[in-house]
Amino acid sequence: MPLRTVGILSPGDMGHTVGKVLRGHGLNVIACTQGRSRRTQLLAQSAGIKPVPTYRQLVAESDLILSILVPAQAKAAAESIAEALGETKTELVYADCNAIAPQTVREIDGIISAAGGNFVDASIIGPPPKNKESTRFYASGGDLGIFRELSEFGLDIRPLGAEIGLASSIKMCYASLTKGLTALSTELLTAAESLGVSGALRSEFKLSQSALYERMQRSLPSMPPKSRRWIGEMEEISATFEHVGLTPKILAGAADMYRFVGDSHLADLTPEDAESYPTLEEMISALAEHLRKQDA
Amino acid sequence: MPLRTVGILSPGDMGHTVGKVLRGHGLNVIACTQGRSRRTQLLAQSAGIKPVPTYRQLVAESDLILSILVPAQAKAAAESIAEALGETKTELVYADCNAIAPQTVREIDGIISAAGGNFVDASIIGPPPKNKESTRFYASGGDLGIFRELSEFGLDIRPLGAEIGLASSIKMCYASLTKGLTALSTELLTAAESLGVSGALRSEFKLSQSALYERMQRSLPSMPPKSRRWIGEMEEISATFEHVGLTPKILAGAADMYRFVGDSHLADLTPEDAESYPTLEEMISALAEHLRKQDA
Repeated sequence: MPLRTVGILSPGDMGHTVGKVLRGHGLNVIACTQGRSRRTQLLAQSAGIKPVPTYRQLVAESDLILSILVPAQAKAAAESIAEALGETKTELVYADCNAIAPQTVREIDGIISAAGGNFVDASIIGPPPKNKESTRFYASGGDLGIFRELSEFGLDIRPLGAEIGLASSIKMCYASLTKGLTALSTELLTAAESLGVSGALRSEFKLSQSALYERMQRSLPSMPPKSRRWIGEMEEISATFEHVGLTPKILAGAADMYRFVGDSHLADLTPEDAESYPTLEEMISALAEHLRKQDA
Repeated sequence: MPLRTVGILSPGDMGHTVGKVLRGHGLNVIACTQGRSRRTQLLAQSAGIKPVPTYRQLVAESDLILSILVPAQAKAAAESIAEALGETKTELVYADCNAIAPQTVREIDGIISAAGGNFVDASIIGPPPKNKESTRFYASGGDLGIFRELSEFGLDIRPLGAEIGLASSIKMCYASLTKGLTALSTELLTAAESLGVSGALRSEFKLSQSALYERMQRSLPSMPPKSRRWIGEMEEISATFEHVGLTPKILAGAADMYRFVGDSHLADLTPEDAESYPTLEEMISALAEHLRKQDA
């Protein structure tokens, strides 16, 4: 069965960009955007993604559904699709591409498989895919046939094996480095500002940790608009590490940091506001101010 | 009063190297090594540090005492010196150079000042100082005169101001980056090994996070011999961040990681064993094995 129609759940920042790539390579791309934000509906429209009114129609028309959501929504979305799948009795491949713990992915596999769907554990490493070089789509599962076809439509697909959980595991470990380091950097710079040693610390970093400091300057200012949805991702990684017997605290603390940033007005910006993002110094100064207000 | 004699508490890895630099620049350097390990006594001897039998004699002969210890010993050491100072009624500058929270440093200031000593908050950033370029000695306090003279004897001294706590604060924030990142890296690589995605993760890191991965390869294998003494340092940073109103969890988790590594046989090596340090892959494989045994 050739791949013709892909359903995207949901066409947010990542989802609509993936849909746009698939559209650009000749696939039909559909989404059910009911209950989604106005912004998500506009993003879908801009990507040429066809709206369908119900999950039932999404399931009936799709050969493959890609679930691309915030972690907290992954299970409820799978349950909705499983319900629609039970009603339509169609064939469907459901790929959960979310940043969730492998033990949670195995639960979602159970939900989809029980409804007769073919489940794929997938994960996305890299930014929303502007080109094939920027972003990898890892996948694991017993039957990766349909999912692998995506590599003919502009995506870089990397199979990891038959075991459900492998694709999620690599995402958890990878994101713990990039987003964990960003959380740690944000915390220590905010602490330094509160303690009155920002200037001296900056000079010391430029002297002895210039690569890490340049990374902070490059990556921190664009983080606040993403901070709220990273809270759940950090909690999933924390649960993943705890499940193998390691400490959950580092990543639980990273979740705390994104909660703290998410509570500040900096988090009200969106990627469309990129030109008005603060500099690193402005951002840290605003967070230290936010901290003073919280303590007061 | 010109600086002539410096007392070192205690001449371990960092302390004996500092003493050696000061000796090499013509100062008398003394230490009371009673109750210290045989290794520390040998390190002191190799650095030309003169042993004295009691804290009382250390206080009587020193113009300046540098406290360079594991964090947990900093307060008890200051109490011993304060007691000896009360008995000898001499003039003394006491610089606490340890990696401890600013609120703890202020307590130690109280202990030394009450005994008539002149307290300096100091911190050391960089490896044991082989040369003046490698390592900075930050200092804060009301009278930095004697401490600043160390810059004429081979050390890079950087005054930060009059407030006790500033020198400790920069150390806390700096070490949270370097040792926090090392803890996070160790955790995620060990988790990846346990989850069966080590090889794929390594390839992904080489592709998209090569600078951070090279840092892991360079810095992780020499960490286990230092892991046990880093536990207390992570706890001090955790307390520092909590004190300003930020999450204590990231660094509390880093302490957990160093406790985990410190429990493994890898931590039995010393810097003298540098030639038999494992590669990064060997180290992570040993830690994953250590984790399996713990869980069993």
